[in-house]
Order: sequence, then structure tokens, then C-alpha cells
Amino acid sequence: MAIHPAFGDIAHLGHVELLTPQFDKSLCFFTEIIGLHIAGRDERSAYLRAWGDYERFTLQLTRSARAGLGHVAFRARSGPVLEELVRGIEQAGTQGEWREKSFGQGRAFRFPSPDGHPVEIYYETEKFKAEGDQVPGYKNLPQRYSPHGIAPKRLDHLNLLAQDIRACRQFFHEKLGLRVTEQIIFDGDQEMGAWLAATNKSYDIAFTKDKSAAHGRFHHLTYMMESREDVLRAADILTEAGVAIETGPHKHSIGQTFFLYFYEPGGNRIEIGSGGYLIFDPDWTPVVWSREERAQGQAWGLATVPTFHTYGTPNEEEA
Amino acid sequence: MAIHPAFGDIAHLGHVELLTPQFDKSLCFFTEIIGLHIAGRDERSAYLRAWGDYERFTLQLTRSARAGLGHVAFRARSGPVLEELVRGIEQAGTQGEWREKSFGQGRAFRFPSPDGHPVEIYYETEKFKAEGDQVPGYKNLPQRYSPHGIAPKRLDHLNLLAQDIRACRQFFHEKLGLRVTEQIIFDGDQEMGAWLAATNKSYDIAFTKDKSAAHGRFHHLTYMMESREDVLRAADILTEAGVAIETGPHKHSIGQTFFLYFYEPGGNRIEIGSGGYLIFDPDWTPVVWSREERAQGQAWGLATVPTFHTYGTPNEEEA
Amino acid sequence: MAIHPAFGDIAHLGHVELLTPQFDKSLCFFTEIIGLHIAGRDERSAYLRAWGDYERFTLQLTRSARAGLGHVAFRARSGPVLEELVRGIEQAGTQGEWREKSFGQGRAFRFPSPDGHPVEIYYETEKFKAEGDQVPGYKNLPQRYSPHGIAPKRLDHLNLLAQDIRACRQFFHEKLGLRVTEQIIFDGDQEMGAWLAATNKSYDIAFTKDKSAAHGRFHHLTYMMESREDVLRAADILTEAGVAIETGPHKHSIGQTFFLYFYEPGGNRIEIGSGGYLIFDPDWTPVVWSREERAQGQAWGLATVPTFHTYGTPNEEEA
Amino acid sequence: MAIHPAFGDIAHLGHVELLTPQFDKSLCFFTEIIGLHIAGRDERSAYLRAWGDYERFTLQLTRSARAGLGHVAFRARSGPVLEELVRGIEQAGTQGEWREKSFGQGRAFRFPSPDGHPVEIYYETEKFKAEGDQVPGYKNLPQRYSPHGIAPKRLDHLNLLAQDIRACRQFFHEKLGLRVTEQIIFDGDQEMGAWLAATNKSYDIAFTKDKSAAHGRFHHLTYMMESREDVLRAADILTEAGVAIETGPHKHSIGQTFFLYFYEPGGNRIEIGSGGYLIFDPDWTPVVWSREERAQGQAWGLATVPTFHTYGTPNEEEA
Repeated sequence: MAIHPAFGDIAHLGHVELLTPQFDKSLCFFTEIIGLHIAGRDERSAYLRAWGDYERFTLQLTRSARAGLGHVAFRARSGPVLEELVRGIEQAGTQGEWREKSFGQGRAFRFPSPDGHPVEIYYETEKFKAEGDQVPGYKNLPQRYSPHGIAPKRLDHLNLLAQDIRACRQFFHEKLGLRVTEQIIFDGDQEMGAWLAATNKSYDIAFTKDKSAAHGRFHHLTYMMESREDVLRAADILTEAGVAIETGPHKHSIGQTFFLYFYEPGGNRIEIGSGGYLIFDPDWTPVVWSREERAQGQAWGLATVPTFHTYGTPNEEEA
Repeated sequence: MAIHPAFGDIAHLGHVELLTPQFDKSLCFFTEIIGLHIAGRDERSAYLRAWGDYERFTLQLTRSARAGLGHVAFRARSGPVLEELVRGIEQAGTQGEWREKSFGQGRAFRFPSPDGHPVEIYYETEKFKAEGDQVPGYKNLPQRYSPHGIAPKRLDHLNLLAQDIRACRQFFHEKLGLRVTEQIIFDGDQEMGAWLAATNKSYDIAFTKDKSAAHGRFHHLTYMMESREDVLRAADILTEAGVAIETGPHKHSIGQTFFLYFYEPGGNRIEIGSGGYLIFDPDWTPVVWSREERAQGQAWGLATVPTFHTYGTPNEEEA
Repeated sequence: MAIHPAFGDIAHLGHVELLTPQFDKSLCFFTEIIGLHIAGRDERSAYLRAWGDYERFTLQLTRSARAGLGHVAFRARSGPVLEELVRGIEQAGTQGEWREKSFGQGRAFRFPSPDGHPVEIYYETEKFKAEGDQVPGYKNLPQRYSPHGIAPKRLDHLNLLAQDIRACRQFFHEKLGLRVTEQIIFDGDQEMGAWLAATNKSYDIAFTKDKSAAHGRFHHLTYMMESREDVLRAADILTEAGVAIETGPHKHSIGQTFFLYFYEPGGNRIEIGSGGYLIFDPDWTPVVWSREERAQGQAWGLATVPTFHTYGTPNEEEA
Repeated sequence: MAIHPAFGDIAHLGHVELLTPQFDKSLCFFTEIIGLHIAGRDERSAYLRAWGDYERFTLQLTRSARAGLGHVAFRARSGPVLEELVRGIEQAGTQGEWREKSFGQGRAFRFPSPDGHPVEIYYETEKFKAEGDQVPGYKNLPQRYSPHGIAPKRLDHLNLLAQDIRACRQFFHEKLGLRVTEQIIFDGDQEMGAWLAATNKSYDIAFTKDKSAAHGRFHHLTYMMESREDVLRAADILTEAGVAIETGPHKHSIGQTFFLYFYEPGGNRIEIGSGGYLIFDPDWTPVVWSREERAQGQAWGLATVPTFHTYGTPNEEEA
């Protein structure tokens, strides 16, 4: 009786493929500094996950001439819902294609976002099975926590740059059922950012305005720690490892998340975060921030660093 | 096209009505020690909420000869879904009745759980509007955080004692669409506990086996802090206020929550907690704990205190 | 047999007198936002303390035409040691005078720092005695912790601006026995800052170079929280109360303290902090930071805000 | 002019030698689970330190037929003070002997505590020099923080069992200058425990009543984390590694420390802790706890586990 798409039809963000022109350095960074685990490799890519991720991987790292987004994948609630979502996308005139079973997942439908980012939706997945000394002490966790590097718990969200924020927001809300949780709208009608959630979290994906003329660019992805104290500790680990921090640790007003931004060796921006708030209200009204409010910077008054407004991958300044 | 009930049809736990034979002391306790805010009062009840609760109230405290559960209310995803849920409940042979608009909420359907606990489902609600010095500094929060007492953020879950755990689990799963997240099953078929979620949280309601012959008893309700450090601080506040702690702070294996249990003056058990884990997997398999595993106590080996297995309200030992 | 002064002859920082041209607003700020307790008042001053301070007061707030330091007082190890310290100060040619018993303390010797800051040393003190609902639940704490405002635990340190850092450092080390823990020395011989400790803490007083031509100016004083999480919470309390944050929360490389700076209504800079490290090594070698190292900003790369290098009280720009 | 010993003559606890009948397992436990670093080895012993310890080692692990204390060593304030302390000890009739330079330290004077525990005092020491990827990012820390195992920051204190608590307390106070910070005295005159500090910490050594007839036994030693959150994390690491926790995480009323107790494979009790309070008052009055107060258990009402009152190493029950 419900009409799809509805909130919940997309269950969650599944994985992100990042392109890197420094594959070996990027892989070393994600395993040694970030503390992700390698789930598998093939000729082009390495597949990684955090200790709390339940699927076989959440990050696909792929050799490429330039940095940026390979694709982002969301898991549907069920097989039939996946079919219905695809039907809706196609009826709306978006061209996509089914791709066969690949590493860790079943068939997936890949299509472009309104800004051209490759997006996949899938349902069938391989769940991580811990073995040996990775078997968890707690039955309700997928893997034993073993401190090594920053050791985040799980993939949380990603942020994509786009030219037409309204189009992206509408697509993800209307075709995929995500909830619009927060927005930046300048001067009453100029959409500069949109935050959307597939879950009770304050967001799973965000789109922010690309100030360059490029399409399909990547802003950042985020792995989550269990406490803000852990994010502070992560900042020490990065500092002691000689990794320059772009901004943070500090708190976003939008989404209430505690953030820490830096770049992996391939040039992609990565965030280690924690916190945020849960939305339980089924008829939540998106929170809208004005130009004047955003000019006040981050939660406690920290000026937003200029690169945060301009840098994405691929980096157009290199072109 | 989807068939109700489905996961998500119940949006979240809305509020709990607690009965207290020590109304004045209970009210003072919840406002001064716990740090809840009074939303309103009528001749029988006071209505309270935590600073992060978005609805007008989450706790109704009601004068009564004995302690226990007045009722528990869950908010449906929408008005039409509410109607469908009621239809399903009635078709299954459960008798209930519609109740008119009451403090903070629209009409609600009240019916007994399989163990006789009064349960309500509703959709229409009044959202909290902050005024004066309660207006939040963050637009995405309902109220300014003002430290006073323990000051938890929000209502999280409740636990009800029941004779037939299987019946309660099946009802909440099959008629209300909640996800079964964890279970205690002794000796392969003896259900001793069930944890269910309406959200991505690891649970919103739990049923555990009542070892007395009583029906409809209340085990505890839980307000959440934003960090485990806050729960430790709460333990100091209780201790300095002369409130005896039943058990904790410590960690549950089940649900991964960090807990702290004590009694309000009316005799009802209250928990201050934090943590837990989020479930994103749409085809999550319930985690099942055996008799032997439960005999190991809480997460870090703390023996479960005997009262935790026997005490509920109304307290049958008083009878 | 030991020759005074030696490390330990000054037991600790006792209290700071702050001058404020906005006495009523300052007093309200320190009690309502910071959460200090009023210990007493006289015609010129209010006397305040944090819940964990063992003496009767740690902050004296005094009406004045301009903001700045009234005086800073350190408690000596014993009465005889106090006498010896005074003898050494006088022998070195510094003029001072004994002042009679005043609020909360016995007689004290007041003298100017090499930069002209009024400094007192004393031994006799009144210890705080909790009464009524301030009586602590823990016998080893002076007062019950009662959350109200930021509620820091104790006075920690202060920072004074000075023209001749070397002279201040030498005086506090050689005449008062403080340990030099860290220094900023530009280009091999230009002393820009000195951190000194009377205790195992990484510092109890700091002197940093005054870039104006003024003498005797005040940079900031610091009250301490028990965790970094508490400092983050303090930032929310300030933000929600509309208090502008100068910089932080973030971490100092020097002293390893987690910081949060803002101004009280009288214009004096206040810090809420936590952390730091303990020094146990009795022959500790001061850690020296160069111009190049300081140019890297705070611990995680945050650029030091310009006002931090220039603003002190009284504020010369007003003159 | 000051008469030794005075508070401060002993600068701090230096290191502890633990005897283990399971040397290889103990060494693996301290390096892999606790996350200490190996500083050196000889035929009998391995020398270990935490990342924040400034000396070359803080734990000497020695092969032995039985578990227990090899010796405990305290560092004096200076060479001349060391000589004076030794003179005072000898004048009081305690027999000891000078031992030549050994691993990481210069000559040391070894003597028995009133209960027969081997105690050393020394001044000359080798400070840790980090090399390679251990070089810290912060100049004021001895070593880079590298998460591996629990990774505590530094050795904090130890607790020794003794028959005559009064004699031990008096010796450490009168001959070594430690401050008595807290005591357990039953029924007005029966000393059951004494906590003493060489620093501003709430204690560096404790003596508690041995309920067996043995002498010279060891109760526990403690490595410190930087936050209570870190102790909670340590409990998960132990649990997932299959290490049984004796008690905790919880809070001691005495000393206000947050504790977690377990046994290393050789049978010695180890604590991971954090917190406590700093004492600045130079004329601190020891806090005295009565039989009735101690019967209330730990800070938040946790009953003290029976083994905590009876188990020490060597374990007399094995004999």
C-alpha cells in the first residue's frame, strides 16, 4: 500500500570507491595510519573495511590517473525494493545499467547522479566473517577491536560537490527515499548544500555547491569513532605521523558532528568524526541555514578554512 | 505495494507513563536529580521531557497507589500507517480502543501487550517549542542544553517483564514491525529475553522473563547521555545526592550499552545510559545468547545483581 | 641543609584578583556561566571559588575603572619558608610590604614582579568548609559537585604579559623556586615566553612577551575541567549563552593542555582547560621552542589567532 | 636550613621489579596486551616502559619460581639528598646496602621496608631517548604515542601488603618524606591502610593490611591512561583477549581513581587506571576512613570483591 520510494527503502550507505594516483601510498595510509583492514585485492583495487563494518568492505581504493570518486553505493532494504527503485529511476529518465556480481556484492544498478557522480544501488552483499584472532569477544560486533592506527569503527557518510544542489537533493529524496535533514539556502532560494539521511543518523550523504565549473567531484568521506575523545586522539596520531590537518578537531553546527579533516596521499579529503544526532521524528522538517548563519563559521565560531569551500577531487587547479 | 507492518512503520518510542505512590518525591527526583524539564501538569500527572526530546513530553508521572507502568506509547510513521497498524492488531484478535486527544498528542489506539502492559500507538503529536532562555543556540536541537542534575539528552528505551517472551516478541515484530535485534534463549527453545528496535538503534524496547507469576510489570526505562563520561558523572551526582545505585556504571554485552541503574522514590527502576550500536543491515539476524553465555554476567565480567532478575514494579514482594 | 628557595617552597598558585569595569556583569558571568561559587563579598570585591578548590577563594573580582590584574598570590610551603622567601626577595633588592590578614588568608608579602605585576606570597589560609547541601559525598573532596554552568574543578594557572621574559623567568625560578618547564626562545637568545611550575603540573604561571609597550598586563587565567569532553561541553554552554569564543577548543603543544579561550564581560581573557602532563623528573630540562616551531601554530596545526599575541588587560588600544 | 627528609626529597616512584614464574607469557602479556615497550633484556630480566615514561624503564620483569615483588625503586630529588636519606635510614637502624650501577640507573641503596619488601632509592638514571619512528611529534613527550594494546601512558603507583601498616606509613613518611594522604583506621586505632605521595598526586604508594601471616607481599601496580574513556576501552581489549577482569572499571572512593584490575600470567595483580586528584595544600590533613565507611564498598556502591582483600603475590594459598 505504501508507495515507493519511501524513507527506509535505501537501508544505508554501503561503500565508496576512491580513485588515487598514489595507490601504494594511499593503501599504506588507510591501513597503517587510519587502521582499516584489507578485505581483498584485485588488479585495480584494494577493498578495505573498518572493524565495526558488517559488510565485507566499505572502501574500494582504485589506481587511477587522478583522484576523485570512483562510485558510491547504497544498499537497498530488499531485493524487491531494489527493483522498484530502479524502475522509478528509469521512469524518471535517468539512464543506468545493471552490473554483475562483483567483489563482496551481488548485482547492482549503476547510474549517474544529477551532477554526474557514479552511483550504485544493490541489495545482495557478503557479510564479513571474522576468523582467527579477529573473532570478536562480543557476539553483536562483527570483529574484535584491535587498536592499530586511528581504528575508526565504521563508514559513516560522504559529501559530494555538485553544481545543482536542488537537483541532487530532489533526486535522492524523490527517487531513493532519503530524508532531507538540513539545508543551506542563500537569500531565500539559492541552494548551497543539502544533507540527506537513509537512516536515523543526521545524514548519510551531503551535497555542497561546487564553486568550480566541474561536475562529479568528491568532497570527503567519513569514518566514525565512538567518542569525541577518540577524535582528539586521532588528531595526535595524525600529527605525530606528520599528516597535515586541514581543519579540526571542532564541531559542525550542521549535523552536530565532531570533525577532523585531512588528505590521504592520493589527494582525497578524509574525515574522522563522531557524534551527530539521531532523528526519530517521521515528519522532520529540514533545518535551513542562511548565508548569514553560515558566515558565522563552525559551531564554536571557528572560521571555515577556505580550502573547505574550494578543494575537491579531482582538483581542478591541477588541470 | 509494501505490506504493513514493515520495519519503520513505528517511528520510535514516544513516551512512558510511570505510576508512583510517592508522586511529590518522584517529581522532585526527576526534575532536581535527573534534570528533566516540566512540560505541564494536570490533576493526576506531571509531564516531563529531556532537553533533547523533540516532542512535548516523554515521561508522564502519575499518582497511583502502586508503582509500575501506566502505559507506553509509540509514534507511528504517519496517520495512514497508524490506521493500518490498528487494523492489523484488531484482525489478530487484540481488543483495543481509540482514545481522544490528550496532553501533547492526538488520538491514540490503546491495547494490551500479550502480557497485559497498556500500549498506545499514535501519530499526531505536539512538538516542543523552546521559549525564552530555553531557545537553543543550535537550530537542529529542540532546546538549549542547560546543566542541572544529570541532564540526560533523550528518552531511549524501556524494558518490560513478561511471562511469555515469545508472544511479546512476535507481537511487536509481526503487528508493529519492530526488528528483533537480540534474544536470550535458554537450552535452545526457552525464550528469556527479546530486544526489539523501531529505529537503527540496537533496541527501543526489551522484554525479559518475569520470574514472579505477575503480569504487566515494568522493569526499567532509560534516558541517554551523550558519552560514557557523562554516565560516570551521573554516578557521582547520584552518590553525592544519597541515591543508592543498584548496579553500574558498567557495560551490557547485549546491546553494547553503558548502564547505570537506580530507583526513583516511587520504586520504579531507572537507567541512565549511553552508547549501544547502530544496525544498518536490513536483513539483520538476531543475536542469540545462551544460558551459559548469560551466566558470564555483564560485558566485563560483572556478576548481574540478583535484584536485576527479580525486581519489577509493582513489586510483588510488597503484596 | 637545603638552601632556599628550592622547588616546592611555593606550594601552589593561590588566587588571582581580577579588576573589572563591569563588576555586576562579571560577577554574574562567573557565577551563572562559569559556575563558580561566591565565598564572600566586601565593598570592593567578590570572592569566588570552584567546587574543587580547597581554599576559601581562588578568584577575587574587584570593581575598577579598567580591566587587568589586581594581584596574584602564591601559597608558601610553610610559615618559616615564607619568611625565608621574603628575606631572599628583599636581599635581591625587590621592595615589598607585608599586608595584614585579609579575606580568607593571613598576612602576605606583596611585591612587584620584574614587569610590575603585583605578586603576593602567603602561608596562612582559611580552608573551605562545606555546609548544608554543599557537603561532599566524598571525604577527599572539599565540596559536592553540583552541575551549574561550566562548573570547572579548580583554578589551574595564569599567564602574564611582560616586557622582559628573562627577568620574570629568573625571578620566579631563583627567588621563588619555581621550575622552568618550557620556553619560547627566538633566534637563539630572544626569550618570548616562559612556563614555570610550583607543582608537578606542566605549569602554574606563564609569562609571554607583551608586544605593546605596557607593563604589568594580564593575559589570562585558567580554570580546569576533569576531562577534554568537559571542555567541549563548556564550548557548547558558552555558544548557547552567546559568549564569543576567541579560540579553541584545541590543544596547545606547549604544556599539552586542551584549551578554550573567551572574555569575561570586564574584558579579561579566561581559559577553560584540561589535561597537560605531570613532570616527575627532578632535573627536568626546559623544553625550548623556536620561532619556526611556534610558527606552526597550535598542536594540530590551528593558526594562533592574532588577538592571542596582542590582546591583554588593560587593553592598550582603548587608551 | 630545611631538615631532611622533607616532602619532595623523593621525587617519584621509579620502577617496580615483578617476579614471574611464567616469564615468557608475562612478557608477551605486557608487550602485546598492555602495550608496553621493551627497553632491554639480560639473562634474568626484561625491562619495559610505557610510552610516556621518561626513564629508560619502569617495569623489570624477572624469572622466578614464585610471583611477587622483586623490588620497588624511588628516585631521589638529587644526589646529595639521596645521601642524606640514606644517612637517616641507617641512623634509624635499618640495614641496607649500596648496589652498583645497573640497567638504566646509577648506584642505589637497597633496604627492607618494615614489612620486608625490598626497596631501593637512587638518583642517577638514564633517560629514554626515542629513535626512528618512536621520535615524538611533541617535544615535551618522551615518545610518540603508537596505539598497540592498551598503551597506558605511565607507571603511576603500587600497593604493598603488610602486617604493620603503622610502621610502614611512619617509615615512608618520616624517613623518606612522603605525604600521608589517606588512611583506613578501624575502630579508632587499627590501621588497615595508608596511602602516601611523593608528588602532588593523591598517592604513589599504598600499604594495605595483609590478612595472611605472610610478609613482603605485593598487591598491585598501576599504569595510567589519560582518560576514563581509555580505561573503558582497556576493559574491552582485555575482554576480547580473554583476560579475566577481577573488578572494575569502577571508581575508588579513596584516591578518586578510576580502576580496572586483572592478573598478568605470572599471577601478579595489575591495575589500569586514570583520574585521581592533585593535592596542592602543603599542610594536607590525611583523610581517614572508618570500618563503617569502608563497608560501603567502592565509590558508587560496588561491593569490593573478596579476592581484593585476600589475594597477593606470592599467593600463600599455593604454599
